[in-house]
Amino acid sequence: MISLASRRVHYNTLSFRLTRAAHPSRSSPFSSSASAMRSLTAADLNPSVANVHYAVRGELAIKAEEHREKLAAGHKHLPFDKVISSNIGNPQQKGLDQPPLTFPRQVAALLEYPPLVDLVRGKWPQDVIDRAKELQEEIGSIGAYSHSKGVPLIRKSVAKFIQERDGYPSDPENIFLTTGASAGVSLILNVLITPNVTGVLIPIPQYPLYTATLAQFSGVPLPYHLSESDDWSTSLDEIRAALRKAEAHGSHVVPRALVVINPGNPTGAILDKRTMEDVVRLCEEHSLVLLADEVYQANLHRPDTHPFHSFKQVVRDLRSPVPLFSFHSISKGVFGECGRRGGYFECTNIPDDVRAVLYKMASVSLCPPLSGQVGVDCLVRPPKPGQPSYELYARETDAIHAALRHRTRLSAARLNALPGVSCVDSPGALYLYPKIELPQKAVEEAARQGKAPDALYALELLDATGICVVPGSGFGQKDGESHYRLTCLCPGVEEYVGKLESFHLKFLEKYGGL
Amino acid sequence: MISLASRRVHYNTLSFRLTRAAHPSRSSPFSSSASAMRSLTAADLNPSVANVHYAVRGELAIKAEEHREKLAAGHKHLPFDKVISSNIGNPQQKGLDQPPLTFPRQVAALLEYPPLVDLVRGKWPQDVIDRAKELQEEIGSIGAYSHSKGVPLIRKSVAKFIQERDGYPSDPENIFLTTGASAGVSLILNVLITPNVTGVLIPIPQYPLYTATLAQFSGVPLPYHLSESDDWSTSLDEIRAALRKAEAHGSHVVPRALVVINPGNPTGAILDKRTMEDVVRLCEEHSLVLLADEVYQANLHRPDTHPFHSFKQVVRDLRSPVPLFSFHSISKGVFGECGRRGGYFECTNIPDDVRAVLYKMASVSLCPPLSGQVGVDCLVRPPKPGQPSYELYARETDAIHAALRHRTRLSAARLNALPGVSCVDSPGALYLYPKIELPQKAVEEAARQGKAPDALYALELLDATGICVVPGSGFGQKDGESHYRLTCLCPGVEEYVGKLESFHLKFLEKYGGL
Repeated sequence: MISLASRRVHYNTLSFRLTRAAHPSRSSPFSSSASAMRSLTAADLNPSVANVHYAVRGELAIKAEEHREKLAAGHKHLPFDKVISSNIGNPQQKGLDQPPLTFPRQVAALLEYPPLVDLVRGKWPQDVIDRAKELQEEIGSIGAYSHSKGVPLIRKSVAKFIQERDGYPSDPENIFLTTGASAGVSLILNVLITPNVTGVLIPIPQYPLYTATLAQFSGVPLPYHLSESDDWSTSLDEIRAALRKAEAHGSHVVPRALVVINPGNPTGAILDKRTMEDVVRLCEEHSLVLLADEVYQANLHRPDTHPFHSFKQVVRDLRSPVPLFSFHSISKGVFGECGRRGGYFECTNIPDDVRAVLYKMASVSLCPPLSGQVGVDCLVRPPKPGQPSYELYARETDAIHAALRHRTRLSAARLNALPGVSCVDSPGALYLYPKIELPQKAVEEAARQGKAPDALYALELLDATGICVVPGSGFGQKDGESHYRLTCLCPGVEEYVGKLESFHLKFLEKYGGL
Repeated sequence: MISLASRRVHYNTLSFRLTRAAHPSRSSPFSSSASAMRSLTAADLNPSVANVHYAVRGELAIKAEEHREKLAAGHKHLPFDKVISSNIGNPQQKGLDQPPLTFPRQVAALLEYPPLVDLVRGKWPQDVIDRAKELQEEIGSIGAYSHSKGVPLIRKSVAKFIQERDGYPSDPENIFLTTGASAGVSLILNVLITPNVTGVLIPIPQYPLYTATLAQFSGVPLPYHLSESDDWSTSLDEIRAALRKAEAHGSHVVPRALVVINPGNPTGAILDKRTMEDVVRLCEEHSLVLLADEVYQANLHRPDTHPFHSFKQVVRDLRSPVPLFSFHSISKGVFGECGRRGGYFECTNIPDDVRAVLYKMASVSLCPPLSGQVGVDCLVRPPKPGQPSYELYARETDAIHAALRHRTRLSAARLNALPGVSCVDSPGALYLYPKIELPQKAVEEAARQGKAPDALYALELLDATGICVVPGSGFGQKDGESHYRLTCLCPGVEEYVGKLESFHLKFLEKYGGL
């Protein structure tokens, strides 16, 4: 409990300085009541938010933005002529420029301005016009709020997609469309977490959405390590160890949920079916809710040897009662439509009263953006063979898959050839997560600067090459290790990896690692 | 603190029943570990969410949806042939069909599918094509994540709009674009609220977003009553009384923020400048952060006598150091683009470290939907006189203003003529909030059904007419009073009000009030 008396004192001592700071250029006096006012300071805020960290858009990204602004303003002293944002899986961003798929964009344009149909009839494929008409009739206007769980027709389409993918029924009532997968994860964690009581098992390394959202809602992260030496596989022993550790504390923490990211972020690893079954059994044993983050399910580089299976399918195969939330998104895959903020989650084995609570909470934010919902419709109902848009759709998506596969393999191979670097060749997702052995002098320099060693490495990489990656310390790793995550979205992969290579060698030289 | 032992017992006793309930049609045995599993139940959830209520999409809206489905399925036994959703300010929804403005929709269509420009050149106004090109060059693709605070160019446009509106500078760095105003309110309250400590003054009646979000983040609502007898004006005495009440409790609650909705929701009242100055002074006196919900600032029915002033302007006029967050949205006004989920807030007198925390929290949800951001750009940079789109834009917006004004005035006058009804004729926003005197027998019947009297009235109104309103108990009112909120968005206002009238008379007759 925060002492009220100490807060008051705190406000008063800070008041004058901050009142002035907020108006540095103002010399006139405030009213008498104003001069006694205590100002708002970061120290007054919800203490939970101080614990929120989100490295993907942290120090590195902010510095990259500064470099970008300098370049745009004509500065010539930087040793690069462009900033490459490899810190975030954002395929369509400037400089990466993965072209959006034509089918969903033509559908979206027609929904934005329905009279457009008169201009494009005969010029755009008929299946585009038909889809837009069908959605238009269901939705009315995309400027209207929809049902808080999303447009019913689109939820039906999602259920059909899941059913065809898994071979098990899916009920549209179990589908919630969301403002990107992140909003779904946030909603579920908010609802599941009793502050300072509920423990949530999260993989390490993990996408920092999970640690950030747990901090926001005062959930207790229970980290389990993935096995880098085994291609970042998920180890049941590690999960059990994390559970034992939570119990051993003799603490008030109740492990309540397990997060699996499959394909992995930042690892790109894909779980095999046997491991998934073990995970589900373990959730049964320990009465855990399973959160399956499956947003990279379409990013498969070697689908023959590393196929994707959904947890929904495994739970049904096992006839398991494990409560499961499965997340998907239009931001990744071949769509890459991050800016639309579209996604969904499916509830499996979730009782009606819990679903009603989720609906109530979803309704407070009214509805996900219709632009994202329409994107979800196109994601789960893409053009089929024989339809007029199919050929172009297939060509566009094949090209994206092939480029990702090529860049991932080439980057992994070249990174692995560097001294002090080892990199699992990801079979999925959009990332590589190389481990880097940093010279002792670099570790000392980082300590001197108050930074993690891989943060020093990433900052020097950015300053030398304009390439922005995220240090492993933002995703979590074992003590004493260093990693970074790079996206495999950058065109010109040869030149890009060349920059990584020459920087790495210079870094080792500078700090005496060669 | 929740007792762990009691939780465990609770899980075990419920386990068998709920495991079966989740699989009613399944007779095969689960694995041994599964049968011992405790299922997820609503009782396990974050206790804060149980306190969240959001009447706008509550029992009434769910029942309206059921009626709508029955009508669509061909049911003939209902005493109406359409459901009219007057429960939510959603101008473009089916049945209301306020047409979207042409300019923002043409711009949006071009951003969705940039090659479209070749088809529309010479056919669409040049200012549409220019705007789309300008935004396209800044954004790249609307399928890309933007800056977490929103596209820099659009934030600059917002700052310029504010500067022109108020006559005081606005800094784009103080602007955060949001997923509708709701997401901004949620972000601010999340950051300001220390659970169970922070008190937030909210008007009664209020838009239930505030009570819902306070419940979600365990903030303490400190209600202050608006003065219905004085056209729903904001009374400083009432705010002071609420502050005294919070202090008198001798409690741990620290009043930290004051919410003002101007123009009001559900009241439609507009604060005069003198009252706004008094509110700002009071915030100074009590070191309160001011949250100004100004999403209806363009919905003014009598702007000569009831103009809108922003709190930003008043704070600057007074040279006040009061920390202020001001919210605006594309969902209301004449845009009515609810489905895009676009809005913004401006920070005034907010120190850099607090703004940095807001940025960090915004970055966890990546960015607001680009579709909403582009909508914000068009809201703050509409076509100007002399530009090719202006004439149509002016015609479209004039028609919307005129229709709202007409419906509001006519509805208020007709409602006021009914026995037992008094209704302030709103000068702004989209709503009326009539007070209804309900017969004693109706009050008793409601008690028998475990409902608020106005909830009984609203349910019977829905069942009799298909009109869905929100009972006053969802917004808050004085003990023993009854109200309901209706939107003034429905076309065919004569027929619509006729239904309200005849229902009201029948209701009084049924319960012996005539």
